[in-house]
Amino acid sequence: MSKLSTGNFFEDFSLGQRLVHGTPRTVTDGDASLYTALTGSRFPVSSATPVARALGLRDRPLDELLAFHIAFGKTVNDISFNALANLGYADVRFLQPVYAGDTLQSESEVIGLKQNSSGKNGNVYVRSTSYNQSGEAVLTWARWVMVHKRSPESPAPEPHIPELPSHVAPEQLPIPAGLDASAYDTAWTGSKHLWEDYQPGERIDHINGMTVDESDHTLATRLYQNNARLHFEELMMKPSRFGRRLMYGGHVISLCRALSFNGLANSLGIAAINGGSHCNPSFAGNTFYTWSEIVERWEIPGRGDLGALRVRTLGVKDMETQQLADAKIDKDGRQVYHPNLVLDLDYTLLMPRRGPGNP
Amino acid sequence: MSKLSTGNFFEDFSLGQRLVHGTPRTVTDGDASLYTALTGSRFPVSSATPVARALGLRDRPLDELLAFHIAFGKTVNDISFNALANLGYADVRFLQPVYAGDTLQSESEVIGLKQNSSGKNGNVYVRSTSYNQSGEAVLTWARWVMVHKRSPESPAPEPHIPELPSHVAPEQLPIPAGLDASAYDTAWTGSKHLWEDYQPGERIDHINGMTVDESDHTLATRLYQNNARLHFEELMMKPSRFGRRLMYGGHVISLCRALSFNGLANSLGIAAINGGSHCNPSFAGNTFYTWSEIVERWEIPGRGDLGALRVRTLGVKDMETQQLADAKIDKDGRQVYHPNLVLDLDYTLLMPRRGPGNP
Amino acid sequence: MSKLSTGNFFEDFSLGQRLVHGTPRTVTDGDASLYTALTGSRFPVSSATPVARALGLRDRPLDELLAFHIAFGKTVNDISFNALANLGYADVRFLQPVYAGDTLQSESEVIGLKQNSSGKNGNVYVRSTSYNQSGEAVLTWARWVMVHKRSPESPAPEPHIPELPSHVAPEQLPIPAGLDASAYDTAWTGSKHLWEDYQPGERIDHINGMTVDESDHTLATRLYQNNARLHFEELMMKPSRFGRRLMYGGHVISLCRALSFNGLANSLGIAAINGGSHCNPSFAGNTFYTWSEIVERWEIPGRGDLGALRVRTLGVKDMETQQLADAKIDKDGRQVYHPNLVLDLDYTLLMPRRGPGNP
Repeated sequence: MSKLSTGNFFEDFSLGQRLVHGTPRTVTDGDASLYTALTGSRFPVSSATPVARALGLRDRPLDELLAFHIAFGKTVNDISFNALANLGYADVRFLQPVYAGDTLQSESEVIGLKQNSSGKNGNVYVRSTSYNQSGEAVLTWARWVMVHKRSPESPAPEPHIPELPSHVAPEQLPIPAGLDASAYDTAWTGSKHLWEDYQPGERIDHINGMTVDESDHTLATRLYQNNARLHFEELMMKPSRFGRRLMYGGHVISLCRALSFNGLANSLGIAAINGGSHCNPSFAGNTFYTWSEIVERWEIPGRGDLGALRVRTLGVKDMETQQLADAKIDKDGRQVYHPNLVLDLDYTLLMPRRGPGNP
Repeated sequence: MSKLSTGNFFEDFSLGQRLVHGTPRTVTDGDASLYTALTGSRFPVSSATPVARALGLRDRPLDELLAFHIAFGKTVNDISFNALANLGYADVRFLQPVYAGDTLQSESEVIGLKQNSSGKNGNVYVRSTSYNQSGEAVLTWARWVMVHKRSPESPAPEPHIPELPSHVAPEQLPIPAGLDASAYDTAWTGSKHLWEDYQPGERIDHINGMTVDESDHTLATRLYQNNARLHFEELMMKPSRFGRRLMYGGHVISLCRALSFNGLANSLGIAAINGGSHCNPSFAGNTFYTWSEIVERWEIPGRGDLGALRVRTLGVKDMETQQLADAKIDKDGRQVYHPNLVLDLDYTLLMPRRGPGNP
Repeated sequence: MSKLSTGNFFEDFSLGQRLVHGTPRTVTDGDASLYTALTGSRFPVSSATPVARALGLRDRPLDELLAFHIAFGKTVNDISFNALANLGYADVRFLQPVYAGDTLQSESEVIGLKQNSSGKNGNVYVRSTSYNQSGEAVLTWARWVMVHKRSPESPAPEPHIPELPSHVAPEQLPIPAGLDASAYDTAWTGSKHLWEDYQPGERIDHINGMTVDESDHTLATRLYQNNARLHFEELMMKPSRFGRRLMYGGHVISLCRALSFNGLANSLGIAAINGGSHCNPSFAGNTFYTWSEIVERWEIPGRGDLGALRVRTLGVKDMETQQLADAKIDKDGRQVYHPNLVLDLDYTLLMPRRGPGNP
């Protein structure tokens, strides 16, 4: 019996199947420091304990994306070790803050299967959830990936494509217990812009950029305990069509989020990711820039202290965002992503509202 | 109204103006570990809790320069985002140890302004102070930077150049409450050299060197949440006169300080920085070496357990220090820094004295 | 009197000599996070506190190799600063778990000396032990290094070669107090393979590889406060026979151990290292792969919950392990290590046994 784990192939998945993923992980202040060093993030809620406490939280939470990457990393071995492509995310909800000392453990359920016409691979849809040491769900997300078949002869399963929401509805946005933004102080960021100041249709070019080197993305991806080989093995990747190690797309999300500070500084955190595409591959040596478009501005029922902004953030490599009017260009009559576009992320932020404390 | 912060230009500053800087930051053991990984520092007081406790402190403090870089990083967005040059530091005093769990928040006051003769920029002098979560000042420093004007037509302000001390006087050196070096044990470093052993005029070539790669200095500078673009954006820097990303000068100070362990191992910490120049730019790929000159040896009034050493530490790139008799060379009759000289730092160390415990 | 520490030369050592090494070090969660980021390790006992507690430990211990590298790093300045070669390790025993908050301090005794026939250098054998803040020994190891003489004229000492065991006997393997593997849950790794499943003579090719960049190995080696110059100074190493900075061999051990997760996932930790060779030098840019051979399977007297596996793990650079039938090749009638072989490590793992909890 081989001692090796070689991941699951398309035939190994069945509708309704449940997978408990390995490597539970205690997260700590050490992870938070590394995340700051890897991204340069400056959002105050996860930077300073007194800020988090002034807003009713018991401590500064880990950046939601750090928690997401760690939770996600656990699923790679069982779900996407043999994936050709990460096709999409939907209905990502940050159910509870994750604090230093918490232990994350992830599970998945197969919610959809569809063999592709080539007969060589198929799409697997999973709903994954990460739990803390008390068994409380802290994060949940759907994703779908294209996975190799072990053998093209294997019979195709009954196709089933799950219904997934286009976005998390405002009334379903998770808001951390105890969070009260009434005492929010714009001096924490130096930016005066709150929920009321953002208009649907508005575009913000975030100016600042970030060049990533090999050690940056591999340190990040190892920190997340993501074991997908194509991020780590230059020897294996050299003869591939990429010619080199590929950056973990999740880390590109983190970089773009950190760069969006200049323009979205007062966001309290990400409540949900509605969907996202890694439009083109990213590599060490790329300099990343980002712009955001305000998609919708939602009141949160019963909350005068904060509202929600649905935002689309676009990540670009090796060119300034001002040169791009749109994420897509015309190519032979089809709209395709500009070749320098690396990320198209649709997500929802919580943002303080004006009030007695923030006139 | 633009959502972007583009920093202050020369016209935006006024004498006596006060600025509260964003992104309060809780510092942790994670930052301390990263600082060790980034610098290789081996000074025992910040390396080991039992050492710090044996000397009367409640815990091992963070390296003073780590605290400084984090405190300093907060001021960049408001003070030096549009700076052409960091002209100097003076009167840097480390007022209190910073411990894991403390939260730093920085403020500045404009203490001087002088437009330059070109009319295109001017020098801004600030006194910055960083406070902990109890509102106690833990660090204070003056610095001056040359900042672009938004428009050459803007009128020049009344020039005012503040008086700054050439050095922090021995009687003004901050000494941490409770610190008592009587129990200092030279086995903590393996070096036998204490305060009495250093002679003004003495030169120490510290032998060890350190090559820095891109990820090293960018990880450090992101950890410090310093958002000056020229450290991070290869795309922007390529066509600049530097041709590539510039290292944050503060990190060069940290490297030289860590390298000075071999020769100044028993220093208890930096009490003050009297002044400093980044003489030439530093880049990834450089190998740094350092030498020190003992400038003055001061008794501390009322203290038999420790004394002060005023030290000048010189940082050199890509050559061994023994090849340089002096920091400056003659160039057309003027004394200028050798092109490989990157740092000229004048600072004051606390050092244990001989006594019953250290005969 | 020079202020510099230039390490000990062969003449400076004498049989029975005791050395107390500098820089005591408090280890923290920050070190553990960095170690994860540097190696990608996924072994659950040091990844998650609830796992460690379910097995009877008071907290998740630091990875044994992280503790080893920190403990070892302290000895470099006194033992191997002037070494030409690290010749071997023996009888490395991990006596107690090391937890975040512990402070490590190392001492050595010279247990052997033998001048080499050239008269220019000699072999020094030391027994080193690292203690925690309570004075308990947590790690002990023997190693021998070839050290330069200060002068070829110095007389040779009486030769003495210590007897060192070929391996740590099963009855001498340290087992952490309180450790009880009865509640081990294979869901923590997703691997079903326990002690009974491994057969002496079995070979496991661990598939996954890891490319190392300059910042990776230098960050690691600085974290370990190892100050051997050849890991850090590109300027010094460029004209050397290596042509560049050399990786610290201990970090190669860590990488191979982390890569061995795929195949040895349920190992509870390393109890002992029986011996090891760094067969060829390793450099940034290398991609590392590894295979393991099960050497012996030992019952532990009185323990039904866990057993020991003596394992030989081979590290290879820049080629897949499947291409190598053996670590050694024939060269002019002699058996020598294959030039891509970088590590030959003989060590002993603790592994859960089947039982009521793990049928």
